[in-house]
Amino acid sequence: MRAAYTEKIADLSFSLATMCRQADAAMASATQALLQADLAIAEKVISDHDELDAMRASCEEKAFALLALQAPVAGDLRSVVSGIQAVNDLDRMGRLALHVAKITRRRHPKQALPEEVKAYFAEMGRVAAHLAKGAAEVLENHDAEQALQLLDEDDAMDDLHRHLFSVLMDREWKHGVAAAVDVTLLGRYYERFADHSVEVARKVIYLVTGKIPEDAV
Amino acid sequence: MRAAYTEKIADLSFSLATMCRQADAAMASATQALLQADLAIAEKVISDHDELDAMRASCEEKAFALLALQAPVAGDLRSVVSGIQAVNDLDRMGRLALHVAKITRRRHPKQALPEEVKAYFAEMGRVAAHLAKGAAEVLENHDAEQALQLLDEDDAMDDLHRHLFSVLMDREWKHGVAAAVDVTLLGRYYERFADHSVEVARKVIYLVTGKIPEDAV
Repeated sequence: MRAAYTEKIADLSFSLATMCRQADAAMASATQALLQADLAIAEKVISDHDELDAMRASCEEKAFALLALQAPVAGDLRSVVSGIQAVNDLDRMGRLALHVAKITRRRHPKQALPEEVKAYFAEMGRVAAHLAKGAAEVLENHDAEQALQLLDEDDAMDDLHRHLFSVLMDREWKHGVAAAVDVTLLGRYYERFADHSVEVARKVIYLVTGKIPEDAV
Repeated sequence: MRAAYTEKIADLSFSLATMCRQADAAMASATQALLQADLAIAEKVISDHDELDAMRASCEEKAFALLALQAPVAGDLRSVVSGIQAVNDLDRMGRLALHVAKITRRRHPKQALPEEVKAYFAEMGRVAAHLAKGAAEVLENHDAEQALQLLDEDDAMDDLHRHLFSVLMDREWKHGVAAAVDVTLLGRYYERFADHSVEVARKVIYLVTGKIPEDAV
């Protein structure tokens, strides 16, 4: 009974990690589409989004079944509850990738990004991928030390986001208001994607230690 | 035993509704601060935010204790799981009100909003309050019919948000890029606040019926 339970918890963790990798892949493709104004890639991110919805439903069912079939205690219960919470972050990560792809599609065949800010988004995409990959790993290995490291690595995204805003606010900005609106929203999407990756790491710390990290919120 | 359980579920629902009303009050004050460039009100929203954090922790503890102490079944289990999910939406609602207050503070003594778009934000604030109040009610009364109605009422926010963007994108926009960036972010905050209120309603429908509404995501 106990062994079966442990196995089901491991299966839930694996499903969450898989969903996280899918969200990571969606954001990586969305970033590529954005930087290259590539409609085909953007369309693929949009049509593939259904898979993430299915993964979400499957993770929720697994967590619910664990609670309903066997009453878990202590650490097991934390695993299931943090799993239920993490699935929400993963869902948002997938949706943010979708938003990026939709802006690319809306502006096509024009570029959504002025050349001047492309390097920022290339770097934000790189940081987002790094954080999402880390989140997927800790979802699977439940390594609280590694999860704790991810909390700090979000700072790189915050710095990029702040710099991006200073470029936008600069009087030298020559690309008009419409481009500024797109860049503002896109910047926010990447920042939120990173925040959710970090939230996932925080939930892993909670599930391992029973404590929510201090600088949590 | 059973009666005690029902009572604890009702207590959780009541705590969630209280947290929802607090988030509603925070957004109402943040809107007032924004429209009047009132620093004192903005500061109060910011300092009061700690209360929402405490409410979140308390709701999560209650839900966790319900799962740990007594193994709930079927409807009870759905109540607790949807409560755990809803608390995340309520937390986000509070944070979005906080973001609105912080933009007001950052721009003070200047107005963050050009006169031209104030009416949009007054109306978005009104719709946000309506949705949040509805969410608080259904959290308490578990009325699936009323919750279902809220799902449609979100359309008003989407319309406002779309119109706001058409004002921003208009060549007649005379307020520069910095104001456009603020207005873009503020519009997004109100839209997300409404989305989370609707998500709460959706979770109530799930807890009552066991089904996630069709146009769910």
